[in-house]
Amino acid sequence: ANNKKLIRININRWVVMLMIGILTALVGVVIDILVHQLAGLKYSLLKSWIDSCVEEGCLAIPFALWVAIDALFVCFAAILVAYGEPVAAGSGIPQIKCYLNGVKVPHVVRIKTLISKVIGVVFSVAGGLAVGKEGPMIHSGAVIAAGVSQGMSTTFKRDLKIFKYFRTDTEKRDFVSGGAAAGVSAAFGAPVGGVLFSLEEGASFWNQALTWRIFFCSVTTLFTLNIVLSVYFGRPGELAYPGLLNFGRFTGVSYFWYEIPLFLLMGVAGGLSGALFNFVNHKICIFRMKYVYKPFMQVVEAMMVAIVTATLAFVSIYVSRDCKPLGQDPSEKPLQFFCSDGEYSTMATMMFQTPEQSVKSLFHDPPNSYNIVTLSVFCVIYFILACWTYGLSVPSGLFIPSLLCGAGWGRLFGIGVSHLVPNIAWSAPGIYALMGAAAQLGGVVRMTISLTVILMEATGNVSYGLPLMLVLLIAKWVGDIFNEGLYDIHIRLMSVPILGWEPPATSTTISARQVMSHPVTTLQQVEKVGRIVEALKEPHSNHNGFPVVDVPDETDQVTSGRFRGLILRSHLLVLIKRKMFLERGQTGAIRRNLEMKDFREAYPRFPSIHELNISPEEMECSIDLRPYMNPAPYTVSEDASLHRVFRLFRALGLRHLVVVNKDNLVMGIVTRKDLARYRLVSLRSLDLEELQMSH
Amino acid sequence: ANNKKLIRININRWVVMLMIGILTALVGVVIDILVHQLAGLKYSLLKSWIDSCVEEGCLAIPFALWVAIDALFVCFAAILVAYGEPVAAGSGIPQIKCYLNGVKVPHVVRIKTLISKVIGVVFSVAGGLAVGKEGPMIHSGAVIAAGVSQGMSTTFKRDLKIFKYFRTDTEKRDFVSGGAAAGVSAAFGAPVGGVLFSLEEGASFWNQALTWRIFFCSVTTLFTLNIVLSVYFGRPGELAYPGLLNFGRFTGVSYFWYEIPLFLLMGVAGGLSGALFNFVNHKICIFRMKYVYKPFMQVVEAMMVAIVTATLAFVSIYVSRDCKPLGQDPSEKPLQFFCSDGEYSTMATMMFQTPEQSVKSLFHDPPNSYNIVTLSVFCVIYFILACWTYGLSVPSGLFIPSLLCGAGWGRLFGIGVSHLVPNIAWSAPGIYALMGAAAQLGGVVRMTISLTVILMEATGNVSYGLPLMLVLLIAKWVGDIFNEGLYDIHIRLMSVPILGWEPPATSTTISARQVMSHPVTTLQQVEKVGRIVEALKEPHSNHNGFPVVDVPDETDQVTSGRFRGLILRSHLLVLIKRKMFLERGQTGAIRRNLEMKDFREAYPRFPSIHELNISPEEMECSIDLRPYMNPAPYTVSEDASLHRVFRLFRALGLRHLVVVNKDNLVMGIVTRKDLARYRLVSLRSLDLEELQMSH
Repeated sequence: ANNKKLIRININRWVVMLMIGILTALVGVVIDILVHQLAGLKYSLLKSWIDSCVEEGCLAIPFALWVAIDALFVCFAAILVAYGEPVAAGSGIPQIKCYLNGVKVPHVVRIKTLISKVIGVVFSVAGGLAVGKEGPMIHSGAVIAAGVSQGMSTTFKRDLKIFKYFRTDTEKRDFVSGGAAAGVSAAFGAPVGGVLFSLEEGASFWNQALTWRIFFCSVTTLFTLNIVLSVYFGRPGELAYPGLLNFGRFTGVSYFWYEIPLFLLMGVAGGLSGALFNFVNHKICIFRMKYVYKPFMQVVEAMMVAIVTATLAFVSIYVSRDCKPLGQDPSEKPLQFFCSDGEYSTMATMMFQTPEQSVKSLFHDPPNSYNIVTLSVFCVIYFILACWTYGLSVPSGLFIPSLLCGAGWGRLFGIGVSHLVPNIAWSAPGIYALMGAAAQLGGVVRMTISLTVILMEATGNVSYGLPLMLVLLIAKWVGDIFNEGLYDIHIRLMSVPILGWEPPATSTTISARQVMSHPVTTLQQVEKVGRIVEALKEPHSNHNGFPVVDVPDETDQVTSGRFRGLILRSHLLVLIKRKMFLERGQTGAIRRNLEMKDFREAYPRFPSIHELNISPEEMECSIDLRPYMNPAPYTVSEDASLHRVFRLFRALGLRHLVVVNKDNLVMGIVTRKDLARYRLVSLRSLDLEELQMSH
Repeated sequence: ANNKKLIRININRWVVMLMIGILTALVGVVIDILVHQLAGLKYSLLKSWIDSCVEEGCLAIPFALWVAIDALFVCFAAILVAYGEPVAAGSGIPQIKCYLNGVKVPHVVRIKTLISKVIGVVFSVAGGLAVGKEGPMIHSGAVIAAGVSQGMSTTFKRDLKIFKYFRTDTEKRDFVSGGAAAGVSAAFGAPVGGVLFSLEEGASFWNQALTWRIFFCSVTTLFTLNIVLSVYFGRPGELAYPGLLNFGRFTGVSYFWYEIPLFLLMGVAGGLSGALFNFVNHKICIFRMKYVYKPFMQVVEAMMVAIVTATLAFVSIYVSRDCKPLGQDPSEKPLQFFCSDGEYSTMATMMFQTPEQSVKSLFHDPPNSYNIVTLSVFCVIYFILACWTYGLSVPSGLFIPSLLCGAGWGRLFGIGVSHLVPNIAWSAPGIYALMGAAAQLGGVVRMTISLTVILMEATGNVSYGLPLMLVLLIAKWVGDIFNEGLYDIHIRLMSVPILGWEPPATSTTISARQVMSHPVTTLQQVEKVGRIVEALKEPHSNHNGFPVVDVPDETDQVTSGRFRGLILRSHLLVLIKRKMFLERGQTGAIRRNLEMKDFREAYPRFPSIHELNISPEEMECSIDLRPYMNPAPYTVSEDASLHRVFRLFRALGLRHLVVVNKDNLVMGIVTRKDLARYRLVSLRSLDLEELQMSH
């Protein structure tokens, strides 16, 4: 019977992943189609005005219209976020990263967040901001995963009473990994990249079965997407559509070995440019945290950015005199503007369509489509805009603006090279645009494996693997000299104790004794309710678990008694709420011990200790903790090195670890925060204070 | 200074990976070119004889020639393995799997093995056996990795005195992961698949930096391969060649959604067929272990298989009357045989070229290239041959024969479907051949993620991801009902204690106390040499580590004293060999404690206890173990569940874990063998005895 139940649970894991995959694809398609339609309407309207006004001299009207539409759209997106769900701002990847790392950021996986995010991103992209929809799509996948797997929604106060056995942190996190992978798969058509993204950001212990389920989820997404898109484009059943972000296939284009040093150089440039981006964005965000924290001001700032963006786009198209003959431009609505008949403005190719389409243009337009001045101006403007935009109170992906900016200077680089050394065969400037895009993105986010694979899958060409990888590697190395990746910077701005991949370099010389929190609040195996309440209320020991010990030796000032087990804060809260007091047992009020089910019902929002009413008599009662504590949790000797402690935390996804001496007496407890603090201390002692203030 | 050293070591890790990548590619190219040339010579010779003999009626001559050449080639390969290095037999993947799992199989990563393997596989493939070169290429990558990273070779008795700090099990294993990935990358042109292969087979703890290095290694391989092949084919610098096993690109071919159920059905068929394959091969291998264990007999058996293979091929071509018009056949040397002028024999397409080329023909030949009888006969013959061949004393990959067999029945399936329901649009039979190949291979090896990605990369098409994945998933599920994957079967035949991915289902109800070895041999902190020697010689406690304890309480019969630390067997051996006795210290003979360096110098072949000469006086001396023991290793409480113990082993790659009671007194020790035994016991109690006998 028990075996059958295990099999049923396992089958349900697959079912849930299937549902997550399908729903993520649907949400992705909805976002994509809405953006496409809304932006299409906007640009059609503007184009018809511009086309007629160029001759009639009324260009002020389309300009005003453009600014007004963008401001309105962005205003709507900003209101949704600032007043609705602030955590829906940005790409959501830093939050997902924290979540997968084992740190709970409030509201990250709520349905309300999903709604704000989905609607918000449609309007922020259609509103012309320098943002992409990819990050938000990944975040959406994660929220969907959390919602489906729990079979309940706190926002809607609904509980479908299904999948109850998945209501634990670990199970939920596993599904969220799948959702994030599905999001990547939907956004880039990169199912393998999605799996690697989840592993890179979240996993610590390589779990074969889980990885396989994640892969299933991300492939399902791609497949669903294909079906839906084939119907949408009127060719039902033809399964040949890649992901939503389609870079276009680079088929039949190869590069030459002597170009590799140039690509490496571009990696260096990307690392520098990315580090500059991160530095400036960090400063802007700190400024924002200090001065632009009220919702009203956030909305105003977002509108301001929208207005500036539209203005700069209009002005640069207005000023540019770079015209090319029609017929080669792949953008949907080539704009003539001041060009002669039969020509189009190249600046408009980059400014007068969604950033995603501009990336494609830069990758695939034939050589000589762009002139150098146009590209240079565009890059500078776009770099500044993207830098200002990320961190605004609107949903905003970082991938596309980084790619676009990099594609711009990459193409410029390619053109420069073939101008300087005209006698040698060079790759198409589109390849250089691709490498530049990779370099810029790599320099900003500093992701490695998953990004390489995502770009390989999105370009549909395995032979760019090596140069892409080298470019990303160099960009990361160069960038890391100056600062962290932008996601990590934003995580640090949230003051979240996240664990890095590697233990700090000096960790072998530091012992657990130096890292642990000490003294630690302990409980006895049969403990007074008053003492438990006191422990739960103690502000400085807000740990998730308490060591349970034998009656301590009163004369011993160093240790806290012999270790007997560990009890979770959440379980203590449920025990008190359910009044599982021994004295009641004697009067027949408790008939049975609580089971896992009882604890699960309270998940994930356990009562707060301050909400519980406990009468003074009850305070004198006691609880037998033995049936509920974990009698044999992982522990570590006080002499163990920080390196060893770190590996335990990382490999097993621990949240706390009891430190014992050689007689198994409790010496202290190590939490993630202790480790995270140590990491920062060892990097720069300056930041220690900053972190201790938080939380 | 310490920091600088760390950086230098880290840079060297990359350098070593680069070297591994390049060398693996070179070895791969050498194997490939040699096979190509040798097989080309053989088939050219035979073709000219056959062409003239068909008319003159002297077909007995080419037949005899064919049999003789194959027997000779295979004889050579078998002698290399049976008399040279028996561990070079087979694909090497089971051995690599054990190695990455943390179990040392002797000689697996020796240079001598590499030489036997490389030369052997060339002759076994050219000798017409139903084998591939892919598995051996992966094994080669692993050996190269071990050799390069250690900077020494036991076979050649050379020590280059470089990379000394990589002489630990962990570092070596990390590099071997990279080498295996490089091998996959070289064999299939699948760098990402290679990384996933290494992770799937070996990794337990997802190590970001290591994974990135492995990826670098596998991309380097692909790149080197590209350069070398571009030169070999006379177009230096054009970097467009994929891996060595090229399935040909399936471009522009899409499938229809209503074909998916059919693919699923093929998955079921593959699972059944694979399970049958494994069952039969298992029986054959047990037979071999009992009766064909002498080198001479092994060589004879291999020659017998070669003769039968050549005979069957010749007879089936001779008997077949299936002819097609020339011009469509992609095989290099179409054979006319009894066909009319301007036609070729289709049976010869499959039998008269290397298996790898046959796979390609089945994938890409236009519809109507094969008739049903020819395909059916071929599949049956090939299934039997492949099943008999794997496990012979020759280097022999399993991928290609499985793929070929599956491609055969897959194509048959595709032809059948389009015959039965002719009114609907069906995919090309090549797609069905691909799915059948995946199903058969999946049914045999039961690999999942990595295999999907390898096939996706080798076919160069991401849109087959979902069907490939579903086929592999179903094949695995169906096959798992009957038996294990073939690699696991062969690992079990080697009686190696390998750990599965997941703890056994019942593991939460079993405690460490039940699993541990008990009583355990312990040492004291300052211990008599005689006592140490005795412990090292004890046959039943051949553990890699001994717990060091306080003086035990003589009256205590259950525990073995309070735990103080753990000392490695290898360190004890070095300490005795260097005579680090306290009594000598007092006479000034030891000036310094041993350092890590001293232990590393002895790696990886530490002296055996039986080789050391210890005089009776020395036996009375004592050694202070404290400077050399690990004072704070991972331990576990006797109440911890098997589940928890298993996770610790798997996540941290442990080899032994000391079990303590709540007073930190040593209760026993858990080794991998204890865990592996438990897995088997819980699967089938029958196998327990078998395993306990081994080792």
